[in-house]
Amino acid sequence: MNNNEEKLNNLRHSCAHLLAAAVMELWPDSKRTIGPAIESGFYYDFEFAEPIAEEDLPKIEKKMAEILPAWDHFEHREITESEAKELFKENPYKLELISEIVEKKEPITIYTAGKFDDLCRGGHSENPAKDIGAFKLLSIAGAYWKGSEKNKMLTRIYGTAFPTEQELDKHLWQLEEAKKRDHRKLGKELGIFAVSDEVGQGLILWLPNGTIIKEELENWGKDIERRWGYKRVSTPNITKSGLYYTSGHLPYYKEDMYPPMIVDKNEEYYLKPMNCPHHHMIYKAESKSYKDLPFRLAEFGTCYRYEASGQLYGLMRVRGFTQNDAHIYTTLDQAVDEFVSVMKLHEYYYQALGITEYHLELGLRDPKNTKKCHGDEKMWELAEKLTREAAKRTGIKMVEVLGNAAFYGPKIDFIIHSAIGREFAISTNQIDMYMGPRFNLKYTDPEGKDQIPVIIHRAPLGSDERFIGFLIEHFGGAFPTWLAPVQVQIIPIADRHQKYAQIVLEQLKDSSTRVEVDNRQETMQSKIRDAQNQKIPYMIILGDREEKDSMIAVRTRAGENLGAIPIKEFLEKIKLEVESKV
Amino acid sequence: MNNNEEKLNNLRHSCAHLLAAAVMELWPDSKRTIGPAIESGFYYDFEFAEPIAEEDLPKIEKKMAEILPAWDHFEHREITESEAKELFKENPYKLELISEIVEKKEPITIYTAGKFDDLCRGGHSENPAKDIGAFKLLSIAGAYWKGSEKNKMLTRIYGTAFPTEQELDKHLWQLEEAKKRDHRKLGKELGIFAVSDEVGQGLILWLPNGTIIKEELENWGKDIERRWGYKRVSTPNITKSGLYYTSGHLPYYKEDMYPPMIVDKNEEYYLKPMNCPHHHMIYKAESKSYKDLPFRLAEFGTCYRYEASGQLYGLMRVRGFTQNDAHIYTTLDQAVDEFVSVMKLHEYYYQALGITEYHLELGLRDPKNTKKCHGDEKMWELAEKLTREAAKRTGIKMVEVLGNAAFYGPKIDFIIHSAIGREFAISTNQIDMYMGPRFNLKYTDPEGKDQIPVIIHRAPLGSDERFIGFLIEHFGGAFPTWLAPVQVQIIPIADRHQKYAQIVLEQLKDSSTRVEVDNRQETMQSKIRDAQNQKIPYMIILGDREEKDSMIAVRTRAGENLGAIPIKEFLEKIKLEVESKV
Repeated sequence: MNNNEEKLNNLRHSCAHLLAAAVMELWPDSKRTIGPAIESGFYYDFEFAEPIAEEDLPKIEKKMAEILPAWDHFEHREITESEAKELFKENPYKLELISEIVEKKEPITIYTAGKFDDLCRGGHSENPAKDIGAFKLLSIAGAYWKGSEKNKMLTRIYGTAFPTEQELDKHLWQLEEAKKRDHRKLGKELGIFAVSDEVGQGLILWLPNGTIIKEELENWGKDIERRWGYKRVSTPNITKSGLYYTSGHLPYYKEDMYPPMIVDKNEEYYLKPMNCPHHHMIYKAESKSYKDLPFRLAEFGTCYRYEASGQLYGLMRVRGFTQNDAHIYTTLDQAVDEFVSVMKLHEYYYQALGITEYHLELGLRDPKNTKKCHGDEKMWELAEKLTREAAKRTGIKMVEVLGNAAFYGPKIDFIIHSAIGREFAISTNQIDMYMGPRFNLKYTDPEGKDQIPVIIHRAPLGSDERFIGFLIEHFGGAFPTWLAPVQVQIIPIADRHQKYAQIVLEQLKDSSTRVEVDNRQETMQSKIRDAQNQKIPYMIILGDREEKDSMIAVRTRAGENLGAIPIKEFLEKIKLEVESKV
Repeated sequence: MNNNEEKLNNLRHSCAHLLAAAVMELWPDSKRTIGPAIESGFYYDFEFAEPIAEEDLPKIEKKMAEILPAWDHFEHREITESEAKELFKENPYKLELISEIVEKKEPITIYTAGKFDDLCRGGHSENPAKDIGAFKLLSIAGAYWKGSEKNKMLTRIYGTAFPTEQELDKHLWQLEEAKKRDHRKLGKELGIFAVSDEVGQGLILWLPNGTIIKEELENWGKDIERRWGYKRVSTPNITKSGLYYTSGHLPYYKEDMYPPMIVDKNEEYYLKPMNCPHHHMIYKAESKSYKDLPFRLAEFGTCYRYEASGQLYGLMRVRGFTQNDAHIYTTLDQAVDEFVSVMKLHEYYYQALGITEYHLELGLRDPKNTKKCHGDEKMWELAEKLTREAAKRTGIKMVEVLGNAAFYGPKIDFIIHSAIGREFAISTNQIDMYMGPRFNLKYTDPEGKDQIPVIIHRAPLGSDERFIGFLIEHFGGAFPTWLAPVQVQIIPIADRHQKYAQIVLEQLKDSSTRVEVDNRQETMQSKIRDAQNQKIPYMIILGDREEKDSMIAVRTRAGENLGAIPIKEFLEKIKLEVESKV
């Protein structure tokens, strides 16, 4: 967590106290339990004597606003077990927490703001009255005490808070907009993907419309990577377990993998959770000299990880995913240049898609906890130096996160921001000096001696699943023409225009346009509305006049009317759009 | 087995007797064991007192030729156990076989031709002297008695035989040619694929050159299938086991599948051995009306089957493969038309690839053994009727094979013949009336009632693995330009031509040609030879004159010299070739 994040967290944690203070004034016989800051706000769990409803939230907000001005600081003091038990004698939840603190031999601390005491470990704003610029209670939900269904169901009140009104407004707009753009909702409405419990949760069935998006994205990636000097490979989805013992992923990474398939009682096969070891085997399949380096192997490789079912979330967190993966084998001297080039490739992709906001997160070892870091100190230092050097040369904004390194080296994540400002970690990159020796990878240097290559890991488009999930939100389902599953909907005004519709259809199909005719017995208006709901970029309306003049009347999904134009002109427009990816 | 195959089998089995008769005359103290006909010939296993070598084969052939004229028929008689044991008292192998026959309470039969008796179940030519027009002994190998390494190692002599000399000559030429075109040999030399024991046998690692071929083939398939009205989907490589119980593949098909991954002690996930159930789930994901039919779902889907390790063979028999798969859901009335269209699509593909010889194999139930056939009599009869009707309408030559049906219906295999005349079963097709009800698939008919669709299974290009294995042999590695991994090799004559080479390179790259420059310090002749060995369609030789005239000198891999032409002319030639797939 960086400095700004910590400040925001403290502000929200303070606001959770404020919520509890207001609730206790309004419902003195309710019992408060715990109230932490969370990713985009805070919550507090209560036991109410009588149930409350969302309609009560404005009343609570009003009370919070009344209390806040007096909260100009938090005071804290350590108290004894008996003092604590006396203070919370009527609240069995706090008593339970106190017993736990005592058992762990930790100090019992009370934090006070205004007239309100709470059992707490700290982490607040210095001056809540000044720092909490704006807050909002969002929703009410049921939540079991300590998350266990064996315990009592409590009432959880969610809220959020920011230093300024503007930031709160932006966040609320984002929430509203994100709901409309939710990739699970649009994914279903636009026929992009489905999940079937019979196949398994977290395993995506790409429907015909989604498959078009997936393949267009992959074809684009393949074309660009060909131009950037990558060679493509294709590797199996499984391997014998040995490769993961060599990489060090087994046994430590086992719980994130699907269990093994055990053949003949002793041979274990695993679904691959990543493509690296397979690519190393391809690197090794033919001998290499320094003249072959940098050797760039790319694959849209399908991997599987057994994410906990509670973690699964639409396309964003899945159990099977196809990575825009590549591994680049370089000499030590080439590594920084190549890594810079990799980051430039990221920028190329993002710019083409209209993603203008992104930053880097440099994941480093936590110096206080290097236990889970493999490899020697010298290797880590060199890898970190090269990584920083490359990142610096790109000039992209970067934040550092301690403890976020991979077990075999530091990493750089690209965090991209959607059109509504939400952030998504999309691509992980590494300069890896650990796996080369592990896999006994080699190349011959100009003196004929064996050397070990440095390996760069990269995936600018992340996985198809996560990236398309992002794109659905980014575009709100209104994909640019080159990605749109149906690019043109032909709408004959009456039955007598169907013949002309067929002629137009064939001409568009001949130039590889993805086009459909809406021949249903519906009004033109309703056909236009349906095409707009399906976010189809263009509608071609065909009536008597268009047929007579051999023209087509074109409308955009945004409602713009391009008037009657010749088919040829329209085809040129589409072609230009597809080629320039707008 | 059809009539012709049975005749050939009998001829070869007779020739195995002839081989044994010759060996017994030449080495009277050797012991003969068994000698069956096999796919392309026959063998006989012997215990020799002294080892023999391949140099001895002509001597044996000569003796066979001496004996053959007297073999104008086979006689057979049933004998008692004691007679048999007396006859073979000096041969422990035959004695073991006799005991087994007795134990199974089967008759003991002796077949005699000329002066040679053998313990045998029959299956010979009527008149070997006339029927065996030509034979050839091919090789010697070690083979354990009864295939078990616990037993003694015997000497196996392989041979083949045909009704005419011409057929034998063609077969021997085929063997020779097939050796040169062996896809395992060329696959390595041309950098197409590798197999790594660390990943697992039968799991193909597609190297960069092979991946180009695989992706070109898939892109072509996708383009053609789009034109033929297919929708593409993409489904996971795994599923929970339930789908295979529904399909009926479990538990019966279990031994052909990788073992399950068992999650949380009771949930089984399997690698998919076929794509059908996943496609059915996509069919079910959105409701269907008769207007949606025929509904054609296509996928290059990657499946896994645990073939026995002894069965694995290069790209031809593998454990992981990507199928050119599709499932078409039709009304009963549409099924025959659609099936005919599927077979026309096969012909379209094959014609484009220059595969001119192919035939159909209609796999039917064995009426004597219908135990393994699921579904009721009426369904089988209807499916058979529709399948025959469609096959007949295509006019493609067809043979029938009893007992070769799938468990859920009859099937039609396409058998394609390579340029050297070898046959490969490449694509299986079915009109399936069994799985629709099993998976509860539905569509609404014009009256609003639920109906069950017929399912057509098809895969004209089979699997990438098998089909590319076939193409390597078919083209002898000299792929047509559109499939060639490297289409053009630029060969600068001297170092001073490298700059011009670079200019030519960039122009070719801009028009998406797959091109490389050979900058090694080798002679032009040796660079041309290497490019020819790599079967690169075109070489561009660049020297002083070409540079001065801004021309390029073009040679083909066949050695043809196209002279000096402008780059633009060459690019047009290449473009035309790629587009017309020659």
